[in-house]
Amino acid sequence: MKFSSKVEKCELSPMRKFHPYAVAAKAKGRSIYHLNIGQPDIATPQAYFDAVRSFDRPVLEYAPSGGIPELIAAVQKYYADLDIHYTADEILITTGGSEALQIAINCIIDDGDEIIIPEPFYPNYNTIVHTCGGKICPVPTKPEEGYHYATREKIVSRINERTRAILLTNPGNPTGTVLTAEEMRMLVDIAKEYDLFLIGDEAYREFVYGGEALQSFGSYDDAREHIIVVDTVSKRFSACGARVGCLLSHNKAFLDHAMKYCQCRLAVATLDQVAAAALYSVDGDYFAAVREEYKLRRDTVVRKLKEIPDVICECPKGAFYLMAALPVDDADKFQRWLLEEFEDNGETVMFAPGEPFYGTPGKGKNEIRIAYVLQQQKLERAMDLLALGIKAYNAR
Amino acid sequence: MKFSSKVEKCELSPMRKFHPYAVAAKAKGRSIYHLNIGQPDIATPQAYFDAVRSFDRPVLEYAPSGGIPELIAAVQKYYADLDIHYTADEILITTGGSEALQIAINCIIDDGDEIIIPEPFYPNYNTIVHTCGGKICPVPTKPEEGYHYATREKIVSRINERTRAILLTNPGNPTGTVLTAEEMRMLVDIAKEYDLFLIGDEAYREFVYGGEALQSFGSYDDAREHIIVVDTVSKRFSACGARVGCLLSHNKAFLDHAMKYCQCRLAVATLDQVAAAALYSVDGDYFAAVREEYKLRRDTVVRKLKEIPDVICECPKGAFYLMAALPVDDADKFQRWLLEEFEDNGETVMFAPGEPFYGTPGKGKNEIRIAYVLQQQKLERAMDLLALGIKAYNAR
Repeated sequence: MKFSSKVEKCELSPMRKFHPYAVAAKAKGRSIYHLNIGQPDIATPQAYFDAVRSFDRPVLEYAPSGGIPELIAAVQKYYADLDIHYTADEILITTGGSEALQIAINCIIDDGDEIIIPEPFYPNYNTIVHTCGGKICPVPTKPEEGYHYATREKIVSRINERTRAILLTNPGNPTGTVLTAEEMRMLVDIAKEYDLFLIGDEAYREFVYGGEALQSFGSYDDAREHIIVVDTVSKRFSACGARVGCLLSHNKAFLDHAMKYCQCRLAVATLDQVAAAALYSVDGDYFAAVREEYKLRRDTVVRKLKEIPDVICECPKGAFYLMAALPVDDADKFQRWLLEEFEDNGETVMFAPGEPFYGTPGKGKNEIRIAYVLQQQKLERAMDLLALGIKAYNAR
Repeated sequence: MKFSSKVEKCELSPMRKFHPYAVAAKAKGRSIYHLNIGQPDIATPQAYFDAVRSFDRPVLEYAPSGGIPELIAAVQKYYADLDIHYTADEILITTGGSEALQIAINCIIDDGDEIIIPEPFYPNYNTIVHTCGGKICPVPTKPEEGYHYATREKIVSRINERTRAILLTNPGNPTGTVLTAEEMRMLVDIAKEYDLFLIGDEAYREFVYGGEALQSFGSYDDAREHIIVVDTVSKRFSACGARVGCLLSHNKAFLDHAMKYCQCRLAVATLDQVAAAALYSVDGDYFAAVREEYKLRRDTVVRKLKEIPDVICECPKGAFYLMAALPVDDADKFQRWLLEEFEDNGETVMFAPGEPFYGTPGKGKNEIRIAYVLQQQKLERAMDLLALGIKAYNAR
C-alpha cells in the first residue's frame, strides 16, 4: 500500500526511542530522574476543576467552531491587560497550541515553500512543516553564544523567493532564550520589509526570570497583517491536558482561511473551553509563585552545570528548558549508556539528546535539552548524577 | 500576502451563509425550526459528567499521544462485543471522528491522488481532501433510487492509477443509506482487488432502524491491510462536545504513520478521554431507547414528506438525516426566501440546501438535507411549514 510522500518524510518522536531502555532500567530496579519531558509538576489551578464540576447542561453539544464566547472574552481581556487589543473575531480557539501551529502553517506553506526557524527548535515543527510539503530553513546558533539568533544579517541572509514566514518560539523551547524588545522590533521590521508572516509561538510567555514585562509579537500594531500569535493555556496554567490554545491575528484573509480548518474539525472540546475560561480568573500571585519556583530551579541547574568541567551553557532567560553542550562524543550514545550501564545508588538520569532539535544534519550531537520540571532537591540530585555519569562515561 | 494554494481551494461552511438571514428573521420575531444541523437533542449519559466530577489528580497532564489505556480498553471491548478484535496498539484515540478522518486521509493522499466517495457526501470531506492536495472522485446517485451507490460497476469504473482509497459513510450522512452485508463484502473485495484503502466512517453505527445487527468494515478479516475504521463517541452517546474519536486499523505501516500525526499534536484532552471511557459502561437499554426515538422521528418526517406533492424521497434506513428532492427551482433561493419572506403564525423552517453535499458541479440544486433532531411534535410542525413554504414559494 502506498502512503503520502509527505508523511513518509516525517519521523516518530525521537524521544520515544529511549522508552524501551528506560523500561528495562526500571525493571532492573533503577530510579530515573526525568529531565527529558516538558510536563510541569505544578498543580493546575482549582478554578479549572471547579468549572468542570459546575457544568450542568444535559447535552454536551458542539461548541462554535471558532470557540465559545466566554473563553474568547477571557483571552481578549488577558491581552487587553497587556495593552494588546484583539476583537473577538480575531481570536480562534484551537485544540492546544499544537493545532494553532498546524492551522497557521497549513494556511501559509505550500509545496516547496520555506519557513525560517532558528535552530535548535521544537522537533514537532518538522512534522507540521513537512506534512504541508514545506521546508524549514534553519537559522544556526552556537551554545557558546547562548543560542542567540536575533541578528538582522542572520535572518535576512536566509530569505529567498520561496520564503513565506519566520517562526519564532519566544521564550524559546528548547533553548530558553528570550528576545529583547529591540530584537523583536528588528524581526518585525524584517517581516514587513520582505512581506513575510511572522508567527510567534508564545506558549511560555509567563516564564521569564529577569523581571521583564510580558511581551508578545501581537503588540506590534504597525505589522498587523504580518503577525500571527500562537498561544495556549498548557504551560501558563499547567493545564497541558486541557488541549486548549488559540490563534490571534489581525489579518482578515488569514483568519478566513484558518476558519476553514476550524469548521472542518467542527469544534474544540466544550467542557475544556468552559474550564479554560475559568483559568483566566487566576490572579497575579499564582504566576509570581510559579515564576519564582522555576527561577530557583533554573538557577540550580545552571549552577550545577557550571560546576561540571567542559560543559558549555549560558544561563537561559525564560521557559523551563535549557540546552547545553556536554564533553561527550555523542549525547545519544551517552543517554543509552546512562540507562543501560550507569547507576549511582540505584539511580540514573534522562534528558533529551540535542540532535533532533536541529534542522541542519549532524548538528547538536554533543548537546542535550534539560527540562527543569522537578522539585529543587530532585534537581540537585539529577544534576549530580549527570556529572557522575559524564565522568564515568569518559573514563570507560 | 500569499496563502497555500490548497487552503485557497477550500471554502467556508456552506451552512454558514444562512446564519445572517436567520439572525435577521429572529430579529423580526420569527421562530425557526432547525432541521439544518446534526446536533442531537438527546441527553448525554450521566456517566460522562460523573467521571468528570470524580477526576481528582492535581495536575491536568498530557495524555499519551495514542490515548489513555482505559479508553483504548473500553473501545477494544466495545468492538470485541461485536466480535471484531483489535489489539490495544491498533486503536488510536483522536480529537473526534474529524481528526481521525484528517489523519487517515493525510497519511494516504498525496498531491494529485484520488479518493472515491459516493455523493452526496459530508461537505467537510472536501476540506480534508483538498488540503492534502487530493481530489474527490464522486460516485453519482439519484434521489429516485434512494441515493444507492453500492454496485460494483459504479465503483470500479471510477478507479484509475491515481486512486488510493474509497471513503464510505455508513450509515450515511446526508442520505441515511445503510449498506447490506453483501454490498459491504463487494466493496471490501474491490479494495483488495485494486489494492486500495477502504475507509469506513462509521460515526452513526448505532442508528439503524430495520432491526439490523450493528456492522463495521472492521469485521472483514481477510482485508486487514486495507480497512481503516473511523469512529467517535459524538453521536453514539450524544457527546459531540467531547471531541473524542478513534482510528482502528490492522495495517502496521498505516498505524506508524498515523502515530506521527498523533505525536505532533501531543495528545487528546485528558478529562474528555477519562469521561469517554466511562460512557462505554452505558447499557443496551440506552441505545434501544435512543434508536426507538429516532425511528419515530424518521417515520414522521418521511410520512409528512410523502404527503407533499412532487417531493422525491425514499425512506432512509439509518443515521438521523435524509435527503429529498423538492419541487422548487433552487433549494438555496428557497431557503433564503423562507427566512426573508415566509412565515406562518410567526414561524419558519431551516434545512441544509443540497448542492454543497455534491462533488459534481450543478448537482443537488433542488435537494435538501433534513436532520431529524427535534422532538416529534416540533418535527410535525416543521414539516407542515416546509409544505406550506413550497406551496407559497411556487405560487409567487
